[in-house]
Parts: sequence; structure tokens; C-alpha cells
Amino acid sequence: MGALEASVDRASLFEFALRMGDNTLILGHRVSEWCGHSPVLEEDIALANTALDLIGQTQMWLGLGGEIEGKGRTADSLAYLRDAAAFRNLLLVERPNGDFGQTLMRQFLFDAWHLDMLKALERSADSRVAEIAAKAGREVAYHLERSSDLVIRLGDGTDESHRRMQAALDDLWPYTGEMFLADAVDAAMAEAGIAPDPASLKPHWQAVIGEVMGEATLTVPDSGYSHKGGKRGVHTEHLGYILADLQFLQRAYPGAKW
Amino acid sequence: MGALEASVDRASLFEFALRMGDNTLILGHRVSEWCGHSPVLEEDIALANTALDLIGQTQMWLGLGGEIEGKGRTADSLAYLRDAAAFRNLLLVERPNGDFGQTLMRQFLFDAWHLDMLKALERSADSRVAEIAAKAGREVAYHLERSSDLVIRLGDGTDESHRRMQAALDDLWPYTGEMFLADAVDAAMAEAGIAPDPASLKPHWQAVIGEVMGEATLTVPDSGYSHKGGKRGVHTEHLGYILADLQFLQRAYPGAKW
Repeated sequence: MGALEASVDRASLFEFALRMGDNTLILGHRVSEWCGHSPVLEEDIALANTALDLIGQTQMWLGLGGEIEGKGRTADSLAYLRDAAAFRNLLLVERPNGDFGQTLMRQFLFDAWHLDMLKALERSADSRVAEIAAKAGREVAYHLERSSDLVIRLGDGTDESHRRMQAALDDLWPYTGEMFLADAVDAAMAEAGIAPDPASLKPHWQAVIGEVMGEATLTVPDSGYSHKGGKRGVHTEHLGYILADLQFLQRAYPGAKW
Repeated sequence: MGALEASVDRASLFEFALRMGDNTLILGHRVSEWCGHSPVLEEDIALANTALDLIGQTQMWLGLGGEIEGKGRTADSLAYLRDAAAFRNLLLVERPNGDFGQTLMRQFLFDAWHLDMLKALERSADSRVAEIAAKAGREVAYHLERSSDLVIRLGDGTDESHRRMQAALDDLWPYTGEMFLADAVDAAMAEAGIAPDPASLKPHWQAVIGEVMGEATLTVPDSGYSHKGGKRGVHTEHLGYILADLQFLQRAYPGAKW
């Protein structure tokens, strides 16, 4: 191993930062759609806080991305001025909110992966990545505590809530596989010690899912089929509508400031 | 009566053209949201055709608006580059689609007014207005035939369809009153013989509604309360989301052409 072991090409690191930041941006936006619409006030505030955490993490990841790219783009311009094909988020986070149970199931499936990813990133060879991960990890540990608790309460709740949570799990399951798929960017990150091999996160994630679903009396689908494409910019129709809402202000009033 | 009786100030005529064109644009966009999602293929195509008619009428009304304004704005720039507060459509047409019955009820309540309005405009003192109205009227006569037929079939259908149609009527009713309210622009139009006094359309509209609802076994709400504001640019939150979708392409890629 030579002096290059902790180095990586700039384009791959930029891509990695986008993937992390686009996940938190799009999920944060989705969760923010609940603001003022949640079933109870406490949940409304909890969801708004989760969204805010995710948007805060977005600023860090996309800020790092802009810095790595070195072309003058900022977290804001990356968030507001890219079109769908330039987004790198997992398809899971652009799924529609559905009902409250569907939103919480999506959150739980993502949180369980997100926390393990951030824990691994805390040991990153890139100190900027490690620093963001340490900060974000504290918030996400709380997100996971909350979403797993609610999945258990709703899964092991009434017949109606159980039925809805099982339907949510069945519906979202084919979007979880993408979290563990690797491409050349992931390989470069892993080789440089910047990020873990995505596949290495799967066993523990599966164990967490299995444990929570057991307590929730829900059945983990048997299928290994997974939709993919988000990480390389091939998205479902939903992302375009999300961006139309999210970007309207900066698109209609370019350069507008607070 | 002097030589001014058929003249009217340009700003009022521009405003009137926007009101007509924004109604058809926003309703056309709403109806187009069904494309690919309708309960049966024939209805999917019928709704897409209705949307297309309405967008075609929009081009005529907003095209006339741009011509009257004389500042170089076209139907396209008026449609794609105004923000919500500059839109003049009735609140009724920005209501969410809801289920198929809700969409058809909204269409019927609007069509019945729209056809009477266009018939009156065919006798307009402004020949450009009369010409657009004659063209649009032929399409809208068919829209009304279709929407009244479906309201009757669904209202006088199963218990479930009856219940949903009554709920749709109750929900939309408070948005119908705005069609008959007049302001200074309407007064100027009426005085110049360009457009009817909105209130003059009410008795026949009520008769049509009463007849169709009778056949549909639905109860016309007793309330005279009406939401208002759309005609002067005060909209519900829904319009912003509609415009974010509708305007995305021209906002993200200014000046893009086919």
C-alpha cells in the first residue's frame, strides 16, 4: 500500500457527498410535507424536527460537496438549481408519504441504514466526512429510536394499524435493496477508507429490522428484488414533483435572499 | 350615451382576459392531472380531451390579454412566468381533484357557468372576445353535456357513488358564489357591452344546477356563503403547488422551446 491509499479522485468524493446530502434533502422535504397535517400535535412537531435535522445535515453534506467540486457551487445552489437527473438520492426517500404509518415505516427503514452508515463514516479517513457523520449521528440515533418505537406501537396496535403497517412494509421493501448496492464510486470510497462498502452494512441492518418487526408483529417480506437507479440519477416520477415544489422560489426569483 | 359607450380602459379588458384565461388554464391543468390515472380508459381520454380544449382556450384568452396589454407578453409568458398573486382564476378551479366524482362535480358546476358566460360573450361589443367565445362555446357545450350526464349517473347510482357525489357537492358549493360576484372590472365590462354582469348569469345557472341535481337525486346546499378572492389574486395554498408543477420547465430552463 502506498501513499495513495487514503486519497480518492475528487469526482467520486463529490458524488459520495451528493448521495448523502440528497438523501437527507429529499427525505427532509418529504417529512416537512406533514407540517400542519399530522394526526396529533406532538407528532407534527416531532416530524418537523426530524425534517429540520435532515435539512441541517443536507447543508453539511452539500456544502462539503460544493467545496470538493471547487466550482463555486454552494449547498443552496446544489439543492435549488439541479434537475432530477443530477440528484443522487435513494429511490426510497422519494416515495410518497402515504398515511402516517407509511411515512414512519419509510423513516424507520432509512434510519436503521442511516445510523449504521454514519457510525461507519465516523471512522472515515477523510476528517471532514468523519466530523459531519459524528454530528449527524447524534440526531439520527434519536430518529431511529423514535421511528422504531412508533413502528412497534403501530404494528402491534389495532387490527387496522397492524394491517396498514404491514402494507407499508410490503410496499417499501423493494426500495430498501438499493442501500446496499455498490458501484465504482462506492468501491473507490471503500478502498480509500472514506466510506464503508455498502454491502457490509446489510447484516446488522437486517438484524435491526428483524428485531423491530418481530416486536411489531410484522412479517419481513421474503423477496430480494430491489428497484434501483436513484444513486446514479435515474428516478421515479415523484422526484420531479418534489423538485418543482422545493425549487420554485429560487427558480422563480433567482438569487432571492432572506 | 356618447361615443365612449363601447370603449373600456385597457387595464380592465386585460384583467377580464386574464380571468377567462386563468380559469381555463388552472382547470385544464387540474384535469390533466388525471391523465393515466382515470378509472377507465374512455374517461381517461375524455378528461385529457377536456383538458386540451381548456388549454387551447387559454391560449386564445391569454393571447388576447397579451395583445391588449401591449407590453410584449404572450400567452406563454403569462402562463409560465406569473406568480400566484397575479393569477385571476376562480378559487373553484384550483380545488384539488379528490376522487373521480369530486372532479366531475367541479367540472359540472364550472361548465354550467362557463357555457352561459360564453353564450353571453358571443354578443360582446368587442369582436375579438365574441370570436373566442363562439369557438370555445362549441367545446364547452360538449363539456357540459358530458359532466352533467356523469353527475346524474353517479348521483343516481349506487349508495357509495351517491354518497360521494353529495359530499363533493357539499364541499364545492361554497366556491360557486364567486362566479356571480362583480367588481369594478366587471362593471366596466358590462357598461361597455363587452361582458355580462356576472349576477345576470345566476338565475339560469341555478335552474340548470337544480334540474341536474334533481335528476341526480342530490340535494343542493341551502347555504349562500361563498369563498372569494381568486378574481383579485387572493388564492388558496393549492395554486402555489399547481404553478410550481406547471411552470417548472420554463422556470428551470428559461426560454426553452419545443
